[in-house]
Amino acid sequence: MVKQASSSRTQRRKPGRPAGSDGGETRERIVAAAIDCFARDGYAKASNKTIALQAGVTAASLYHYFDSKAALYRSTLQEVNAALIAAYREAARALPEASSMAQLCLGLEKVIELSRRRPGLMRFASASAGEIERHDELDWLDPDDASAFPDFFRQLLLRARRRGELGKGIDIDAAAKMLLACISGLASFHGSLSGPAEFARVLRSFERMLSGELMLS
Amino acid sequence: MVKQASSSRTQRRKPGRPAGSDGGETRERIVAAAIDCFARDGYAKASNKTIALQAGVTAASLYHYFDSKAALYRSTLQEVNAALIAAYREAARALPEASSMAQLCLGLEKVIELSRRRPGLMRFASASAGEIERHDELDWLDPDDASAFPDFFRQLLLRARRRGELGKGIDIDAAAKMLLACISGLASFHGSLSGPAEFARVLRSFERMLSGELMLS
Repeated sequence: MVKQASSSRTQRRKPGRPAGSDGGETRERIVAAAIDCFARDGYAKASNKTIALQAGVTAASLYHYFDSKAALYRSTLQEVNAALIAAYREAARALPEASSMAQLCLGLEKVIELSRRRPGLMRFASASAGEIERHDELDWLDPDDASAFPDFFRQLLLRARRRGELGKGIDIDAAAKMLLACISGLASFHGSLSGPAEFARVLRSFERMLSGELMLS
Repeated sequence: MVKQASSSRTQRRKPGRPAGSDGGETRERIVAAAIDCFARDGYAKASNKTIALQAGVTAASLYHYFDSKAALYRSTLQEVNAALIAAYREAARALPEASSMAQLCLGLEKVIELSRRRPGLMRFASASAGEIERHDELDWLDPDDASAFPDFFRQLLLRARRRGELGKGIDIDAAAKMLLACISGLASFHGSLSGPAEFARVLRSFERMLSGELMLS
């Protein structure tokens, strides 16, 4: 799941990494601990010390990979975004012949599954917009990462059109933005819900609405 | 549209208001100017002086109604929330015999109309979550005001169930939260769109999805 970030802001490998240590695996452990600590304590209260402790590495080792708490937060945000988009892409790959609607619903099911398996990840995602607004030193994703979701929804709708599944007169640009707004709204709401079971019920209501089964007109 | 706020945090009428002046109308003018100024300049840059100037009142008159910029922001947020919920309630009253789906779609049309007639109002609503996160002195709505939207969606779905329009097995609590999350997400997206025409296209895509016309399954 942990990808090499393409941005120029990515932390460069510094001299001094212990010979023979598996840098990729250590970095992965630090980011996994950061997801949980930022989700549990919030950005302001989380500390690099606690994160290093939870990852089972020294603070020096953490600083080898990430210059600052802000840099660690930024990498963590990138990882969480990548994990969520991966859920939708895996669903599309798992059902290569299915309708775009079926692929999207399976994507939502994979997000539900992810929220059960890694509750901290969805809590982190839910809180991220607020954290970025609150802390000047934090940034949104780089444009390349930020466009992953809009591109995914656009491609899904273009595929539906090619297959003759798109509703008559649907404006693909507007519909892709609408799906993004709804999915973002649903992710933000995760933090106000009682837990993974309620999150699953809310996402399944969305699947029913997508399928036109919420209310008769 | 301007309601008397019920909260204990509401500004008390202070002595010194010019005899014979129409306090309600003046307060309304100040809030209307505040919506536009906060939307245009953002909370940090907007000043009570500019707002008073735009409202055509003196700074002293503004301070008669609102102790501080934060108090003015809070009242403005309350007004904007009231204007948006009023759009949905008016739609329900305008179509008393129609399906809950038709009432909800007309509510969205009324929000589109509102965003054309009062573009600052939607811009204010779109930016409000971010402004509250960024500025410690700002608060969310009082519980009474904050529950207006959740209650509206719940009542709409309960009405659909009474009329036999609700989809089989739909969980009303979860579906009400889902609608709220989507509507909040769509409102937040307003600020990233090119203008009222694109906002209208995005909301109409949502209406199509609600009606099950986005994609065939």
